[in-house]
Amino acid sequence: MELIDGKAVATAIKKEIDAEVEKMLAAGHRRPHLAAVLVGHDGGSETYVAAKVKACEECGFTSTLIRMEEDVTEEELLATVERLNNDNEVDGFIVQLPLPRHISEQRVIETIDYRKDVDGFHPVNVGRMSIGLPCFVSATPAGIMELLSRYNIPTRGARCVVLGRSNIVGKPVAMLMMQKANPGDATVSVCHSATRDLKDICRQADIIIAALGQPGFVTADMVKPGATIIDVGTTRVPDATRKSGFRLRGDVDFENVAPLCSFITPVPGGVGPMTIVSLMRNTLLAARHEIY
Amino acid sequence: MELIDGKAVATAIKKEIDAEVEKMLAAGHRRPHLAAVLVGHDGGSETYVAAKVKACEECGFTSTLIRMEEDVTEEELLATVERLNNDNEVDGFIVQLPLPRHISEQRVIETIDYRKDVDGFHPVNVGRMSIGLPCFVSATPAGIMELLSRYNIPTRGARCVVLGRSNIVGKPVAMLMMQKANPGDATVSVCHSATRDLKDICRQADIIIAALGQPGFVTADMVKPGATIIDVGTTRVPDATRKSGFRLRGDVDFENVAPLCSFITPVPGGVGPMTIVSLMRNTLLAARHEIY
Repeated sequence: MELIDGKAVATAIKKEIDAEVEKMLAAGHRRPHLAAVLVGHDGGSETYVAAKVKACEECGFTSTLIRMEEDVTEEELLATVERLNNDNEVDGFIVQLPLPRHISEQRVIETIDYRKDVDGFHPVNVGRMSIGLPCFVSATPAGIMELLSRYNIPTRGARCVVLGRSNIVGKPVAMLMMQKANPGDATVSVCHSATRDLKDICRQADIIIAALGQPGFVTADMVKPGATIIDVGTTRVPDATRKSGFRLRGDVDFENVAPLCSFITPVPGGVGPMTIVSLMRNTLLAARHEIY
Repeated sequence: MELIDGKAVATAIKKEIDAEVEKMLAAGHRRPHLAAVLVGHDGGSETYVAAKVKACEECGFTSTLIRMEEDVTEEELLATVERLNNDNEVDGFIVQLPLPRHISEQRVIETIDYRKDVDGFHPVNVGRMSIGLPCFVSATPAGIMELLSRYNIPTRGARCVVLGRSNIVGKPVAMLMMQKANPGDATVSVCHSATRDLKDICRQADIIIAALGQPGFVTADMVKPGATIIDVGTTRVPDATRKSGFRLRGDVDFENVAPLCSFITPVPGGVGPMTIVSLMRNTLLAARHEIY
């Protein structure tokens, strides 16, 4: 069994990006600039945004954090989005989700100029990914593909089972895994709450990508010996031994599943660090106008 | 075994649409207006466009056929697209594919205003379908879903195998079948040229959607007794007994597969007629501004 070290890969990629930024500066360009809009003070969102700002520093990017209070109106938020759309000093930006209930997330996403949509959530980017055209691929699916690539995990003709059909992980990673590309070209099955015979289906899989948000869902009896397991779950579970009071748990019963696998991602330190790095890569692509 | 009569369903839907148009006229609206751009004189394209114009008549729509010669420049074609984008008398339009090699199909598709893209090929419509938002769903996948619905074929939790991963059938129908909707909510596997153990995978399927363009590919030994078979193939094969010199053949070995099935679509007369009807429905939705 080999552990897929997402943290180490992410560190390596950040160094690669930083070197690219140095080249850009030497050629007379300014630093890539990522802006993030954070509404309210949700603990999880604060943590994610702080990690993104830190990653910007490591990559040599300029970053701007725009804070808005919980009671901001949709109109005010949309005006900020429009301002960022039109700001030539900003290459890409994100609006950290989730948003307060009185604001339409979909409306906000669709207001973002797709050419600055480094989260890859705008319908134009989702559609272009589905068709197989250059686009900003959303961060978690892109990070998963990068891990499969760096660990040379064979995907062509492999049976790949995706657990979960969310718009930000399950559906896009299924599309990427089925496309005629490397990594890709797998025979993909997408399972979800209505799936019957889930264990049988999983046991046929060479690669399982678990993205349900149910801690410990994938048990040893669901895994074919030698399979590769990508664990996207990051559920906070109470842990009195930690200062924070919680720890992150994945969708996989790691202790019992890991000995069976050829490759497996840990939680934390697997897919998580790759997600932020994919956002950095998209920002670099935006700054260089490589896609649009 | 019950035959899924796409022709009869299509006829019924055209009558329903025609009744809707009568209501629109009574309310003071003009008729829905579909325009089609046909480049060159390809036999297949001529047939398809003629069928679409005829369907417009049956639905009470206005139709306009714009012919351009094979040697039209991309610039001229794009100018026509722009003109149709800005023509308030046209609700929706299509550019019949394939186009001559010197013209970028993707560029033409992306120039069409997505709000008039009744073929559902624009990235905005593809992306919105993937996310599960209201959009113009492309005609063949929409027609398949309509057949499943009208024949009350259970899809929730069903194992659905899609053969083929094209942008216009395989990928979108896979997305629709996996979405939490009715029809939909199936466990979907997408198979293609790199798939191994194809027969085993097909034999697990409650529903097979065959969209490869390989006549007679799906044989009896690939089908679980009681399965539903949707045959999207329409390959022209030589037939000296026909005036045209050819007949259409599906991707399924109908003669040997049909006795095993609970439901099966014939070729012709199955999915084909539904495709055109879906285009008509999208045009009706466009005329009523129900989506955009």
